[in-house]
Amino acid sequence: MSIITLTTDYGLKDHFVGALKGKILSEYSEAQIIDISHDIDPFNTVEASYIISAAYASFPKGTVHLIGVDMELNKENLHIVMQWNDSYFIAADNGILSMLSQKIVPQKIVAINIHDRLPSDASGLDVFVTVACHIAKGGLLNVIGREINSVKEVTEMKAVTANDNNSLKGHVIYIDHFGNVVTNITKKQFLEVAKGRPYEIQMKTKNIKTILPNYSAIAISDKYPIKNYEGEKLAIFNEAGYLEIAIFRSNPSKIGSASSLLGLNYRDAVTIEFKN
Amino acid sequence: MSIITLTTDYGLKDHFVGALKGKILSEYSEAQIIDISHDIDPFNTVEASYIISAAYASFPKGTVHLIGVDMELNKENLHIVMQWNDSYFIAADNGILSMLSQKIVPQKIVAINIHDRLPSDASGLDVFVTVACHIAKGGLLNVIGREINSVKEVTEMKAVTANDNNSLKGHVIYIDHFGNVVTNITKKQFLEVAKGRPYEIQMKTKNIKTILPNYSAIAISDKYPIKNYEGEKLAIFNEAGYLEIAIFRSNPSKIGSASSLLGLNYRDAVTIEFKN
Amino acid sequence: MSIITLTTDYGLKDHFVGALKGKILSEYSEAQIIDISHDIDPFNTVEASYIISAAYASFPKGTVHLIGVDMELNKENLHIVMQWNDSYFIAADNGILSMLSQKIVPQKIVAINIHDRLPSDASGLDVFVTVACHIAKGGLLNVIGREINSVKEVTEMKAVTANDNNSLKGHVIYIDHFGNVVTNITKKQFLEVAKGRPYEIQMKTKNIKTILPNYSAIAISDKYPIKNYEGEKLAIFNEAGYLEIAIFRSNPSKIGSASSLLGLNYRDAVTIEFKN
Repeated sequence: MSIITLTTDYGLKDHFVGALKGKILSEYSEAQIIDISHDIDPFNTVEASYIISAAYASFPKGTVHLIGVDMELNKENLHIVMQWNDSYFIAADNGILSMLSQKIVPQKIVAINIHDRLPSDASGLDVFVTVACHIAKGGLLNVIGREINSVKEVTEMKAVTANDNNSLKGHVIYIDHFGNVVTNITKKQFLEVAKGRPYEIQMKTKNIKTILPNYSAIAISDKYPIKNYEGEKLAIFNEAGYLEIAIFRSNPSKIGSASSLLGLNYRDAVTIEFKN
Repeated sequence: MSIITLTTDYGLKDHFVGALKGKILSEYSEAQIIDISHDIDPFNTVEASYIISAAYASFPKGTVHLIGVDMELNKENLHIVMQWNDSYFIAADNGILSMLSQKIVPQKIVAINIHDRLPSDASGLDVFVTVACHIAKGGLLNVIGREINSVKEVTEMKAVTANDNNSLKGHVIYIDHFGNVVTNITKKQFLEVAKGRPYEIQMKTKNIKTILPNYSAIAISDKYPIKNYEGEKLAIFNEAGYLEIAIFRSNPSKIGSASSLLGLNYRDAVTIEFKN
Repeated sequence: MSIITLTTDYGLKDHFVGALKGKILSEYSEAQIIDISHDIDPFNTVEASYIISAAYASFPKGTVHLIGVDMELNKENLHIVMQWNDSYFIAADNGILSMLSQKIVPQKIVAINIHDRLPSDASGLDVFVTVACHIAKGGLLNVIGREINSVKEVTEMKAVTANDNNSLKGHVIYIDHFGNVVTNITKKQFLEVAKGRPYEIQMKTKNIKTILPNYSAIAISDKYPIKNYEGEKLAIFNEAGYLEIAIFRSNPSKIGSASSLLGLNYRDAVTIEFKN
């Protein structure tokens, strides 16, 4: 029984997600369908890219990830499948997979070419469903596409190292349910540049000098109860490997969140300065 | 393993949906439960009707659709099961199934009569669960209900053809996650009246002269990149077969949606005028 | 195939819930995962406590309930598993399980002690996943924890009987999707104190003199159609056994809800006075 995950901007109110699952089960009744998110901001490929990049490593080998964001076939965006470490990603070639392909070397990429084998009223989603079920059943990529060499790159996704190696400039790519702010600075990139030097994370008028191993590490001493640390700002590398600015135990509708308290919004700059 | 789908107005925050699934699995551990929507506007039977009518065709034969909207048993609303094309719909007879029964001829309809066979504190939902599991296991409708001839009709659901056959008058029945506006004018009704004549879709101060085969068809020429067409209004027949007024790549919270940009709300008129 | 339910404050937009399911399926591919809620107010252990207490009875024996609210391991909150009636509850010992332990006598409680058997970068959630899969596969509690005698009590959860036995003082612990107001007064406690006496439920400037067996019982006579009773206030004991103040067929965004119409908010007092 193979897993097919779903990441879309369809929302949960309409019939779209239920109908998508019905189509999958009509083609492959054994499929185990797992929702990753259906609340991607409409047509926001950067958000979709971050979410799938943060989620995929938690799934077993052989999992098929169907990404239904900005995926109507058109003259600019091919439909593609990327294979990596025996996981499969089905998406339009609109940049969504570029965040993944930065981190990993794909085993294989194919441009889906079965569109004219399906009924004439088949939608882009029907194509994705057929491809997902084909792969989940163990079918070969060559049967549903022709091999290509690379995916479309979206430079927006990458943090930039200064020429003098003394700073790393990124920006906010995602604000999560707790109002925590995720940047495009990865742990890997940070370690490569930091080389053990002290540093300061700069964002608007605030800065942070230590990246913690986890949220609770904010309560450094045994002197005060945990509750006393609520509302303090902190930085960690989150499970997906990205630098995250957070407020300890934030509740966006009550005490406020990193995004609201520090005034950080989507695309705002976050820079790390290293001291020599 | 039979599929049981769920369409309710319970929302996802409370325990209701989880508890409903627990009850189903307690009676029938093999059930494959698929959510269609739990965000139906509370007690809005028109929305529920549209959603189930748009979703059911995507599921395999034998699927059981449980509809938990305005379903407490009372003196006005019987509990019923409608069978069609070997799909099953369990709902209160409050008009929800009338949109379906317009399109299809039911194989069988029964009024559920097992209420006094269940414990005295069983809720309406418990009755639906028992019926859904009975059918999903392959049980006969006659065991859980007595046959009736028709479901309650809700005239609101139907678009009206003018006496002179020169116009088709419908209205907005649903506004989706993208802010796209769904009317009660079906493709079938349109084709019957249009007979190939030119037409104009009129809504408030705007009109549209062409119904497109899909969203991306708005980008008619190869002259401009797709991005240039964002924000343009268009009309299509959606996958459920209803006329839909949309904004190309709309994001309700940013560029606005068909509903906000064209000022179209639930129940507003949308008329198609045909030219002779 | 064992059921693992999930109750968290992670929200549905981020990748957290999908990743959690991926981790469970990576460890135990046969697990049947059911969402109870992911929209618990962030870090609100009272809400989580009510939701799990309202949901658990609908699930079959052997079900494992994973509660991911305020669950990072820290100096104050142990990670625990409580077994009751062959159901299992995995949570931080932060008061969440105290609402359950009021109603039931646990069979066994253990403090999880496998933290140092997992990789050093394992999160609290990874620990919960490992424990949940261990139990769902039929593993023993003693293997993953050492027995303890009690869970942390949160007195906030209990309604108070007056010394003269003439009143029962509770407060609002939850406001549901329909805006109905749930109090911490249980049916059991009410029956013990009431002993058949007449009573009045007092809340701010309003009161109610009868607790109905179900919502539709508001339409007492056959004189008027059901629709005429919409908007009337009523009280019932809900399926979870708690006193609930409701508006008949309320739609919070339209006619208003018990919470908005009666001005009842989280923590507001609701008192039952008994007449001798």
